[in-house]
Amino acid sequence: MKLIRFGEPDREKPGLELEDGTRLDLSDAISDYTPDFFACGGLERLKALAAAPQAFPRVPAAVRLGAPVARPGKFIAIGLNYRRHAAETGNPIPHEPILFTKYNSSICGPADDTVVPRGSTKLDYEVELAFVVKDKVRYLASERDALAHIAGFMVCNDVSERNFQSERGGQWVKGKSCDTFGPLGPWLVPAEDVPDFDRLDLKTLVNGQVRQSSNTRDMIFGVPHLLWYMSQFFTLEPGDICTTGTPEGVAHGMKPPGFLKPGDLVELTIARLGAQRHKVVPPR
Amino acid sequence: MKLIRFGEPDREKPGLELEDGTRLDLSDAISDYTPDFFACGGLERLKALAAAPQAFPRVPAAVRLGAPVARPGKFIAIGLNYRRHAAETGNPIPHEPILFTKYNSSICGPADDTVVPRGSTKLDYEVELAFVVKDKVRYLASERDALAHIAGFMVCNDVSERNFQSERGGQWVKGKSCDTFGPLGPWLVPAEDVPDFDRLDLKTLVNGQVRQSSNTRDMIFGVPHLLWYMSQFFTLEPGDICTTGTPEGVAHGMKPPGFLKPGDLVELTIARLGAQRHKVVPPR
Repeated sequence: MKLIRFGEPDREKPGLELEDGTRLDLSDAISDYTPDFFACGGLERLKALAAAPQAFPRVPAAVRLGAPVARPGKFIAIGLNYRRHAAETGNPIPHEPILFTKYNSSICGPADDTVVPRGSTKLDYEVELAFVVKDKVRYLASERDALAHIAGFMVCNDVSERNFQSERGGQWVKGKSCDTFGPLGPWLVPAEDVPDFDRLDLKTLVNGQVRQSSNTRDMIFGVPHLLWYMSQFFTLEPGDICTTGTPEGVAHGMKPPGFLKPGDLVELTIARLGAQRHKVVPPR
Repeated sequence: MKLIRFGEPDREKPGLELEDGTRLDLSDAISDYTPDFFACGGLERLKALAAAPQAFPRVPAAVRLGAPVARPGKFIAIGLNYRRHAAETGNPIPHEPILFTKYNSSICGPADDTVVPRGSTKLDYEVELAFVVKDKVRYLASERDALAHIAGFMVCNDVSERNFQSERGGQWVKGKSCDTFGPLGPWLVPAEDVPDFDRLDLKTLVNGQVRQSSNTRDMIFGVPHLLWYMSQFFTLEPGDICTTGTPEGVAHGMKPPGFLKPGDLVELTIARLGAQRHKVVPPR
């Protein structure tokens, strides 16, 4: 069972993709995969619906997919969370997780174009494992309790503009939140179907050439630790997204840097979680 | 006309406070002051409703007020945006606005308790002028066009934990987003009723003693510039909040620092926009 949202941007409807690839339109049964959906036991309801697929219309194959979750309260990102990525950027291994933010307005679908923002000179990709929070979490007692609070996992491309991120003053958010900088999906896969979230291959290709190829095993702070850690600072809420950092191989770390330009094709894959495919297009 | 939300936390209803202090319960006419409300011309509708106050029940005086806006897409904050505050922190005047983030889960009402987070050692207050975005804004051509896109103004206390902000690795968000760290209100005052937003007195008292006393005239980057600037990086959406920085006098800048402790009473006021009053309470 994989959660999808399909249709035109800002008008996506909720659906399910079954193991055989069939896509069901659930919009008559479910309003959307919003924070309220997760808060009100939506995943359990979904299992019941998936058991009777004949009751739902099919989604035509050509229909666009959007991000598999809607209007999260937070879209948190983790910086420098892979050992070899910290090394390639010349940074020490962090003592504690580094948190930053992507704004919701950056969220888009898994095959949408990546729009170069005006003035951009250093456009970069970052394949990342993202998770979605299932219920309210505050002051988690132990990492061991974390997984029970995770709704599922998905692919995130933490698109970054390194000039905006680091050379325009202050915090990273400017270079992390441009429109189309937060593609999510294609699917949200329920956590119980991803028992090996801590040893998944993840990969980025640019114009068919491998740029990133690593495994979530190289993470410095694993998913349970991240959820526990964040909960010491603030309440995590149903539907909140956390994207957990990228492995080595970003454009910024190459010599010379291999920043993206219009016309490039970026493909990102995480085992079990599917693939994204983005054409880089000029500023609008 | 002042927008209020009233009732228990997470169950607030929309209302209006009239010039004579009467509070109207508009929950039969308006669902809530969400992004959709602003996107769909809600402020214009509200004016029509305010013209017939007898049609609406009164809100009892003792009822709690919540933040005057609900579930913003973004809660953006500006750092070091007053000349004398930059000086007291030992930082140079920024060349460009410094953006950071407060998470929605920090939002609370104008008289709610400020809860000391566990492990906190350096709890601070920051009185700030916040504005709410009225419609979609991207690549604004000029500062001159900015005001037309602002729904209104309100008081924000950008509560901060300086140890979490600066001594725990990475970005500021950890020290800016703890629960109860984003009190908003009491009112959202429509922009047309705040023509002097760039010369408003703002003040913080701790236990009756003046700590901050300045004027929005001391801002480095004014409200129109901030909206123009942010729109060069990402789309601003209806209901987005931007809190515009604090003047000098924060606890962190005092010698010795005057950090908050349980039992303290923090009062914040901005001319035209009302007053907040928070009791500091121990960790929960």
